[in-house]
Amino acid sequence: MTRVYTDISVSLDGYVAGPNPTLQEPLGAGGEDLHEWAFRLAAWRGAHGLEGGETGPESELVERTIASTGAYVMGRKMYSGGRGPWVDDPNAGGWWGDDPPFHVPVFVVTHEPRETVELQGGTTFTFVTDGFEAAVEQARNAAGSRDVQIAGGGSVVQQALALGLLDELQLHLAPRFLGGGTRLFDGAAAGTLEIIDTVATPHATHIHYRVKR
Amino acid sequence: MTRVYTDISVSLDGYVAGPNPTLQEPLGAGGEDLHEWAFRLAAWRGAHGLEGGETGPESELVERTIASTGAYVMGRKMYSGGRGPWVDDPNAGGWWGDDPPFHVPVFVVTHEPRETVELQGGTTFTFVTDGFEAAVEQARNAAGSRDVQIAGGGSVVQQALALGLLDELQLHLAPRFLGGGTRLFDGAAAGTLEIIDTVATPHATHIHYRVKR
Repeated sequence: MTRVYTDISVSLDGYVAGPNPTLQEPLGAGGEDLHEWAFRLAAWRGAHGLEGGETGPESELVERTIASTGAYVMGRKMYSGGRGPWVDDPNAGGWWGDDPPFHVPVFVVTHEPRETVELQGGTTFTFVTDGFEAAVEQARNAAGSRDVQIAGGGSVVQQALALGLLDELQLHLAPRFLGGGTRLFDGAAAGTLEIIDTVATPHATHIHYRVKR
Repeated sequence: MTRVYTDISVSLDGYVAGPNPTLQEPLGAGGEDLHEWAFRLAAWRGAHGLEGGETGPESELVERTIASTGAYVMGRKMYSGGRGPWVDDPNAGGWWGDDPPFHVPVFVVTHEPRETVELQGGTTFTFVTDGFEAAVEQARNAAGSRDVQIAGGGSVVQQALALGLLDELQLHLAPRFLGGGTRLFDGAAAGTLEIIDTVATPHATHIHYRVKR
Protein backbone atom coordinates (compact mmCIF):
# COMPACT_ATOMS: atom_id res chain seq x y z
CA MET A 1 0.00 0.00 0.00
CA THR A 2 1.23 3.45 -0.81
CA ARG A 3 2.71 5.28 2.17
CA VAL A 4 2.98 9.06 2.21
CA TYR A 5 6.23 10.00 3.92
CA THR A 6 8.77 12.75 4.18
CA ASP A 7 12.53 12.34 3.99
CA ILE A 8 14.26 15.48 5.14
CA SER A 9 17.51 16.73 6.64
CA VAL A 10 17.21 18.92 9.70
CA SER A 11 19.68 20.73 11.96
CA LEU A 12 19.92 19.87 15.64
CA ASP A 13 18.17 23.16 16.40
CA GLY A 14 15.27 22.17 14.15
CA TYR A 15 15.81 24.06 10.89
CA VAL A 16 15.54 22.67 7.35
CA ALA A 17 16.88 25.90 5.82
CA GLY A 18 19.10 28.63 7.20
CA PRO A 19 18.40 32.36 7.48
CA ASN A 20 17.72 34.52 4.42
CA PRO A 21 16.60 31.96 1.82
CA THR A 22 16.16 33.25 -1.72
CA LEU A 23 14.97 31.67 -4.98
CA GLN A 24 18.64 31.48 -5.97
CA GLU A 25 19.70 29.95 -2.63
CA PRO A 26 16.53 28.38 -1.21
CA LEU A 27 18.32 26.60 1.63
CA GLY A 28 19.53 29.90 3.13
CA ALA A 29 22.80 30.48 4.98
CA GLY A 30 24.33 27.19 6.05
CA GLY A 31 21.40 25.15 4.74
CA GLU A 32 23.40 23.08 2.28
CA ASP A 33 25.55 21.82 5.18
CA LEU A 34 22.55 19.81 6.38
CA HIS A 35 22.90 17.59 3.31
CA GLU A 36 26.65 17.02 3.59
CA TRP A 37 26.11 13.54 5.05
CA ALA A 38 24.55 12.45 1.72
CA PHE A 39 26.96 13.85 -0.84
CA ARG A 40 29.62 11.21 -0.15
CA LEU A 41 27.31 8.20 -0.51
CA ALA A 42 27.25 5.82 -3.48
CA ALA A 43 23.42 5.79 -3.59
CA TRP A 44 23.18 9.58 -3.59
CA ARG A 45 25.89 9.87 -6.22
CA GLY A 46 24.26 7.21 -8.38
CA ALA A 47 20.90 9.00 -8.33
CA HIS A 48 22.72 12.17 -9.46
CA GLY A 49 24.56 10.42 -12.31
CA LEU A 50 27.90 10.30 -10.49
CA GLU A 51 30.15 7.27 -9.98
CA GLY A 52 31.81 5.99 -6.82
CA GLY A 53 31.08 6.96 -3.25
CA GLU A 54 30.82 5.18 0.08
CA THR A 55 28.67 2.11 0.55
CA GLY A 56 27.32 0.89 3.91
CA PRO A 57 24.21 1.41 6.04
CA GLU A 58 23.68 5.09 5.12
CA SER A 59 23.99 4.42 1.41
CA GLU A 60 21.66 1.42 1.71
CA LEU A 61 19.11 3.61 3.50
CA VAL A 62 19.17 6.13 0.66
CA GLU A 63 18.98 3.34 -1.91
CA ARG A 64 15.93 1.74 -0.22
CA THR A 65 14.20 5.10 -0.02
CA ILE A 66 14.75 5.88 -3.68
CA ALA A 67 13.66 2.39 -4.78
CA SER A 68 10.41 2.54 -2.80
CA THR A 69 9.32 5.92 -4.13
CA GLY A 70 6.94 6.20 -7.07
CA ALA A 71 6.24 9.95 -7.01
CA TYR A 72 7.33 13.13 -5.23
CA VAL A 73 5.52 16.27 -4.05
CA MET A 74 7.50 19.46 -3.54
CA GLY A 75 7.05 23.20 -3.07
CA ARG A 76 7.80 25.87 -5.63
CA LYS A 77 10.95 27.12 -3.86
CA MET A 78 12.52 23.67 -3.79
CA TYR A 79 11.73 23.27 -7.47
CA SER A 80 13.33 26.62 -8.28
CA GLY A 81 16.42 25.75 -6.27
CA GLY A 82 16.86 22.47 -8.07
CA ARG A 83 16.10 23.64 -11.58
CA GLY A 84 17.96 26.91 -11.21
CA PRO A 85 16.53 30.41 -10.91
CA TRP A 86 16.06 30.78 -14.68
CA VAL A 87 14.24 27.57 -15.39
CA ASP A 88 13.47 28.40 -19.02
CA ASP A 89 17.16 28.51 -19.87
CA PRO A 90 18.38 24.90 -20.05
CA ASN A 91 21.95 26.01 -19.37
CA ALA A 92 21.15 28.01 -16.26
CA GLY A 93 22.13 25.39 -13.72
CA GLY A 94 20.42 24.67 -10.44
CA TRP A 95 21.18 21.54 -8.42
CA TRP A 96 19.70 18.99 -10.78
CA GLY A 97 20.63 19.81 -14.40
CA ASP A 98 18.78 18.04 -17.21
CA ASP A 99 18.72 14.62 -15.55
CA PRO A 100 17.23 15.25 -12.10
CA PRO A 101 17.68 12.59 -9.40
CA PHE A 102 13.99 11.60 -9.18
CA HIS A 103 13.40 9.44 -12.29
CA VAL A 104 9.63 9.35 -11.56
CA PRO A 105 6.80 11.94 -11.67
CA VAL A 106 7.21 15.00 -9.44
CA PHE A 107 4.27 17.25 -8.52
CA VAL A 108 5.09 20.88 -7.74
CA VAL A 109 2.64 22.90 -5.62
CA THR A 110 2.49 26.39 -7.08
CA HIS A 111 0.13 29.28 -7.79
CA GLU A 112 1.40 29.69 -11.35
CA PRO A 113 0.05 27.39 -14.09
CA ARG A 114 2.79 25.96 -16.27
CA GLU A 115 3.24 23.18 -18.85
CA THR A 116 4.51 19.82 -17.59
CA VAL A 117 8.30 19.51 -18.03
CA GLU A 118 9.72 16.16 -19.19
CA LEU A 119 13.41 15.66 -18.57
CA GLN A 120 15.97 12.92 -19.07
CA GLY A 121 15.91 9.75 -16.97
CA GLY A 122 12.15 9.63 -16.45
CA THR A 123 11.69 12.74 -14.27
CA THR A 124 8.59 14.81 -15.08
CA PHE A 125 7.54 17.98 -13.26
CA THR A 126 3.78 18.58 -13.16
CA PHE A 127 2.57 21.89 -11.74
CA VAL A 128 -0.47 21.67 -9.46
CA THR A 129 -2.35 24.90 -8.85
CA ASP A 130 -5.34 23.61 -6.88
CA GLY A 131 -3.57 23.07 -3.58
CA PHE A 132 -1.38 20.73 -1.62
CA GLU A 133 -3.92 17.94 -1.06
CA ALA A 134 -4.65 17.79 -4.80
CA ALA A 135 -0.92 17.41 -5.46
CA VAL A 136 -0.71 14.52 -2.97
CA GLU A 137 -3.71 12.87 -4.64
CA GLN A 138 -2.14 13.14 -8.09
CA ALA A 139 1.13 11.76 -6.71
CA ARG A 140 -0.73 8.79 -5.15
CA ASN A 141 -2.25 7.97 -8.51
CA ALA A 142 1.10 8.25 -10.26
CA ALA A 143 2.96 6.17 -7.65
CA GLY A 144 0.97 2.98 -8.20
CA SER A 145 1.94 0.55 -5.45
CA ARG A 146 5.04 2.52 -4.53
CA ASP A 147 5.29 5.40 -2.01
CA VAL A 148 4.81 9.15 -2.22
CA GLN A 149 7.58 11.34 -0.82
CA ILE A 150 6.80 14.82 0.46
CA ALA A 151 10.22 16.15 -0.52
CA GLY A 152 10.13 19.64 1.01
CA GLY A 153 10.74 22.38 1.77
CA GLY A 154 9.77 22.97 5.35
CA SER A 155 6.42 24.66 4.76
CA VAL A 156 5.21 21.80 2.57
CA VAL A 157 6.17 19.22 5.21
CA GLN A 158 4.44 21.34 7.88
CA GLN A 159 1.28 21.35 5.77
CA ALA A 160 1.42 17.58 5.41
CA LEU A 161 1.80 17.18 9.18
CA ALA A 162 -0.94 19.66 9.99
CA LEU A 163 -3.32 17.93 7.55
CA GLY A 164 -2.50 14.51 9.04
CA LEU A 165 -1.32 13.24 5.65
CA LEU A 166 2.01 11.73 6.70
CA ASP A 167 2.29 8.02 7.44
CA GLU A 168 6.03 8.13 8.10
CA LEU A 169 8.89 10.53 8.72
CA GLN A 170 12.51 9.75 7.76
CA LEU A 171 14.63 12.39 9.48
CA HIS A 172 18.31 12.99 8.91
CA LEU A 173 19.44 14.89 12.00
CA ALA A 174 22.64 16.69 11.04
CA PRO A 175 25.13 17.68 13.77
CA ARG A 176 24.80 21.37 12.94
CA PHE A 177 23.32 24.50 14.46
CA LEU A 178 21.81 26.96 11.97
CA GLY A 179 20.70 29.48 14.62
CA GLY A 180 17.66 30.56 12.59
CA GLY A 181 15.79 29.96 9.34
CA THR A 182 12.85 27.73 8.39
CA ARG A 183 11.74 25.34 11.12
CA LEU A 184 10.67 21.80 10.28
CA PHE A 185 8.17 21.74 13.17
CA ASP A 186 6.40 24.88 14.17
CA GLY A 187 3.50 23.93 16.38
CA ALA A 188 1.67 22.13 13.57
CA ALA A 189 2.75 18.59 14.44
CA ALA A 190 -0.02 16.16 15.28
CA GLY A 191 -0.30 12.50 16.21
CA THR A 192 2.01 10.22 18.13
CA LEU A 193 5.18 8.61 16.89
CA GLU A 194 6.72 5.18 16.84
CA ILE A 195 10.41 4.63 16.09
CA ILE A 196 10.76 2.11 13.25
CA ASP A 197 14.53 2.15 12.78
CA THR A 198 17.64 4.25 13.47
CA VAL A 199 20.93 4.41 11.60
CA ALA A 200 23.54 6.34 13.58
CA THR A 201 26.93 7.42 12.24
CA PRO A 202 29.36 10.25 13.03
CA HIS A 203 27.87 12.09 10.02
CA ALA A 204 24.20 12.17 11.03
CA THR A 205 21.47 10.37 12.94
CA HIS A 206 18.83 8.89 10.65
CA ILE A 207 15.59 8.16 12.47
CA HIS A 208 12.59 6.57 10.83
CA TYR A 209 9.23 7.23 12.54
CA ARG A 210 5.72 5.97 11.95
CA VAL A 211 3.03 8.58 12.60
CA LYS A 212 0.09 7.04 14.47
CA ARG A 213 -3.17 8.91 14.06
CA MET B 1 39.20 17.69 33.39
CA THR B 2 35.78 18.94 34.32
CA ARG B 3 33.36 19.08 31.40
CA VAL B 4 30.28 21.27 31.49
CA TYR B 5 27.46 19.43 29.77
CA THR B 6 23.72 19.21 29.56
CA ASP B 7 21.65 16.06 29.68
CA ILE B 8 18.09 16.77 28.63
CA SER B 9 15.04 15.10 27.11
CA VAL B 10 13.47 16.85 24.14
CA SER B 11 10.47 16.17 21.92
CA LEU B 12 10.91 15.57 18.20
CA ASP B 13 9.48 19.03 17.59
CA GLY B 14 12.13 20.57 19.86
CA TYR B 15 10.38 21.23 23.17
CA VAL B 16 11.69 20.43 26.66
CA ALA B 17 8.38 21.39 28.28
CA GLY B 18 4.83 21.46 26.95
CA PRO B 19 2.40 24.38 26.82
CA ASN B 20 1.21 26.18 29.98
CA PRO B 21 3.96 25.33 32.49
CA THR B 22 3.30 26.35 36.09
CA LEU B 23 5.35 26.15 39.29
CA GLN B 24 3.17 23.18 40.23
CA GLU B 25 3.62 21.51 36.82
CA PRO B 26 6.83 23.00 35.39
CA LEU B 27 6.99 20.57 32.46
CA GLY B 28 3.67 21.79 31.06
CA ALA B 29 1.09 19.71 29.19
CA GLY B 30 2.64 16.46 27.98
CA GLY B 31 6.10 17.39 29.26
CA GLU B 32 6.47 14.43 31.60
CA ASP B 33 6.01 12.08 28.63
CA LEU B 34 9.45 13.16 27.40
CA HIS B 35 10.99 11.36 30.38
CA GLU B 36 9.05 8.12 30.01
CA TRP B 37 12.04 6.38 28.44
CA ALA B 38 13.94 6.79 31.74
CA PHE B 39 11.38 5.72 34.33
CA ARG B 40 11.69 2.02 33.50
CA LEU B 41 15.50 1.87 33.77
CA ALA B 42 17.44 0.30 36.66
CA ALA B 43 19.90 3.22 36.84
CA TRP B 44 17.13 5.83 36.97
CA ARG B 45 15.21 3.83 39.57
CA GLY B 46 18.36 3.32 41.66
CA ALA B 47 19.11 7.05 41.72
CA HIS B 48 15.53 7.63 42.92
CA GLY B 49 15.77 5.01 45.67
CA LEU B 50 13.70 2.39 43.81
CA GLU B 51 14.59 -1.22 43.16
CA GLY B 52 14.46 -3.21 39.94
CA GLY B 53 14.12 -1.92 36.41
CA GLU B 54 15.59 -2.73 33.02
CA THR B 55 19.32 -3.02 32.47
CA GLY B 56 21.04 -2.63 29.08
CA PRO B 57 22.59 0.18 27.03
CA GLU B 58 20.12 2.90 28.09
CA SER B 59 20.50 2.10 31.78
CA GLU B 60 24.30 2.00 31.40
CA LEU B 61 24.20 5.42 29.74
CA VAL B 62 22.26 6.87 32.67
CA GLU B 63 24.59 5.16 35.13
CA ARG B 64 27.73 6.54 33.45
CA THR B 65 26.24 10.04 33.38
CA ILE B 66 25.35 9.97 37.07
CA ALA B 67 28.76 8.55 38.06
CA SER B 68 30.67 11.22 36.14
CA THR B 69 28.79 14.18 37.60
CA GLY B 70 30.15 16.08 40.60
CA ALA B 71 27.70 19.01 40.68
CA TYR B 72 24.51 20.26 39.00
CA VAL B 73 23.23 23.69 37.96
CA MET B 74 19.50 24.22 37.53
CA GLY B 75 16.91 26.95 37.21
CA ARG B 76 14.42 27.98 39.83
CA LYS B 77 11.42 26.42 38.06
CA MET B 78 13.06 23.02 37.85
CA TYR B 79 13.94 23.24 41.53
CA SER B 80 10.37 24.11 42.42
CA GLY B 81 9.02 21.25 40.35
CA GLY B 82 11.32 18.76 42.01
CA ARG B 83 10.95 19.96 45.56
CA GLY B 84 7.26 20.66 45.30
CA PRO B 85 5.43 23.96 45.08
CA TRP B 86 5.56 24.55 48.86
CA VAL B 87 9.22 23.97 49.45
CA ASP B 88 9.16 25.09 53.07
CA ASP B 89 6.82 22.25 53.96
CA PRO B 90 8.92 19.04 54.02
CA ASN B 91 5.80 16.94 53.46
CA ALA B 92 4.63 18.84 50.41
CA GLY B 93 5.92 16.45 47.80
CA GLY B 94 7.39 17.34 44.42
CA TRP B 95 9.27 14.84 42.27
CA TRP B 96 12.23 14.28 44.57
CA GLY B 97 11.06 13.95 48.18
CA ASP B 98 13.66 14.16 50.96
CA ASP B 99 16.30 12.07 49.17
CA PRO B 100 16.70 13.74 45.78
CA PRO B 101 18.41 11.79 42.97
CA PHE B 102 21.52 14.02 42.78
CA HIS B 103 23.63 12.98 45.82
CA VAL B 104 26.08 15.85 45.15
CA PRO B 105 25.88 19.68 45.39
CA VAL B 106 23.24 21.39 43.27
CA PHE B 107 23.37 25.13 42.48
CA VAL B 108 20.03 26.83 41.81
CA VAL B 109 19.99 30.07 39.80
CA THR B 110 17.42 32.37 41.40
CA HIS B 111 16.71 36.00 42.23
CA GLU B 112 15.66 35.15 45.77
CA PRO B 113 18.35 34.64 48.46
CA ARG B 114 17.72 31.54 50.56
CA GLU B 115 19.64 29.35 53.00
CA THR B 116 21.37 26.27 51.62
CA VAL B 117 19.22 23.14 51.99
CA GLU B 118 20.92 19.88 53.01
CA LEU B 119 18.93 16.74 52.31
CA GLN B 120 19.42 13.00 52.67
CA GLY B 121 21.85 11.10 50.48
CA GLY B 122 24.35 13.94 50.01
CA THR B 123 22.22 16.34 47.96
CA THR B 124 22.61 20.02 48.87
CA PHE B 125 20.79 22.91 47.19
CA THR B 126 22.74 26.18 47.18
CA PHE B 127 20.93 29.28 45.88
CA VAL B 128 22.98 31.55 43.64
CA THR B 129 21.69 35.09 43.16
CA ASP B 130 24.57 36.64 41.21
CA GLY B 131 23.82 35.06 37.86
CA PHE B 132 24.15 31.92 35.80
CA GLU B 133 27.89 32.14 35.17
CA ALA B 134 28.54 32.47 38.90
CA ALA B 135 26.49 29.33 39.50
CA VAL B 136 28.53 27.41 36.91
CA GLU B 137 31.75 28.62 38.55
CA GLN B 138 30.60 27.45 42.00
CA ALA B 139 29.56 24.12 40.52
CA ARG B 140 32.99 23.72 38.88
CA ASN B 141 34.66 24.25 42.24
CA ALA B 142 32.34 21.77 43.94
CA ALA B 143 32.70 19.12 41.22
CA GLY B 144 36.43 18.61 41.68
CA SER B 145 37.65 16.39 38.84
CA ARG B 146 34.13 15.30 37.95
CA ASP B 147 31.72 17.02 35.54
CA VAL B 148 29.13 19.77 35.88
CA GLN B 149 25.66 19.07 34.53
CA ILE B 150 23.44 21.93 33.39
CA ALA B 151 20.27 20.12 34.36
CA GLY B 152 17.60 22.45 32.94
CA GLY B 153 15.09 23.77 32.30
CA GLY B 154 15.18 25.02 28.76
CA SER B 155 16.02 28.64 29.45
CA VAL B 156 19.06 27.66 31.55
CA VAL B 157 20.37 25.37 28.80
CA GLN B 158 19.78 28.15 26.25
CA GLN B 159 21.83 30.53 28.41
CA ALA B 160 24.66 28.00 28.62
CA LEU B 161 24.65 27.59 24.84
CA ALA B 162 24.47 31.32 24.15
CA LEU B 163 27.37 31.97 26.56
CA GLY B 164 29.45 29.21 24.94
CA LEU B 165 29.74 27.37 28.27
CA LEU B 166 28.76 23.89 27.10
CA ASP B 167 31.43 21.32 26.23
CA GLU B 168 28.95 18.54 25.53
CA LEU B 169 25.25 17.87 24.94
CA GLN B 170 23.57 14.57 25.82
CA LEU B 171 20.16 14.66 24.17
CA HIS B 172 17.37 12.19 24.70
CA LEU B 173 15.13 12.64 21.67
CA ALA B 174 11.72 11.29 22.63
CA PRO B 175 9.32 10.09 19.89
CA ARG B 176 6.71 12.66 20.86
CA PHE B 177 5.21 15.85 19.49
CA LEU B 178 4.31 18.49 22.09
CA GLY B 179 3.06 21.05 19.56
CA GLY B 180 4.19 24.00 21.67
CA GLY B 181 5.90 24.94 24.93
CA THR B 182 9.50 25.76 25.84
CA ARG B 183 11.99 25.20 23.06
CA LEU B 184 15.40 23.74 23.77
CA PHE B 185 17.00 25.72 20.93
CA ASP B 186 15.68 29.13 20.06
CA GLY B 187 18.22 30.85 17.88
CA ALA B 188 20.83 31.01 20.64
CA ALA B 189 22.84 27.96 19.62
CA ALA B 190 26.49 28.59 18.76
CA GLY B 191 29.48 26.48 17.72
CA THR B 192 29.74 23.34 15.65
CA LEU B 193 28.96 19.82 16.78
CA GLU B 194 30.63 16.44 16.68
CA ILE B 195 28.71 13.23 17.35
CA ILE B 196 30.47 11.24 20.09
CA ASP B 197 28.05 8.35 20.50
CA THR B 198 24.44 7.31 19.82
CA VAL B 199 22.26 4.81 21.65
CA ALA B 200 19.07 4.10 19.71
CA THR B 201 16.12 2.12 21.01
CA PRO B 202 12.38 2.07 20.28
CA HIS B 203 11.95 4.28 23.39
CA ALA B 204 14.21 7.20 22.46
CA THR B 205 17.30 8.24 20.52
CA HIS B 206 20.16 9.24 22.80
CA ILE B 207 22.76 11.36 21.00
CA HIS B 208 25.93 12.60 22.65
CA TYR B 209 27.52 15.66 21.00
CA ARG B 210 30.74 17.54 21.60
CA VAL B 211 30.42 21.31 21.09
CA LYS B 212 33.46 22.67 19.23
CA ARG B 213 34.09 26.33 19.74
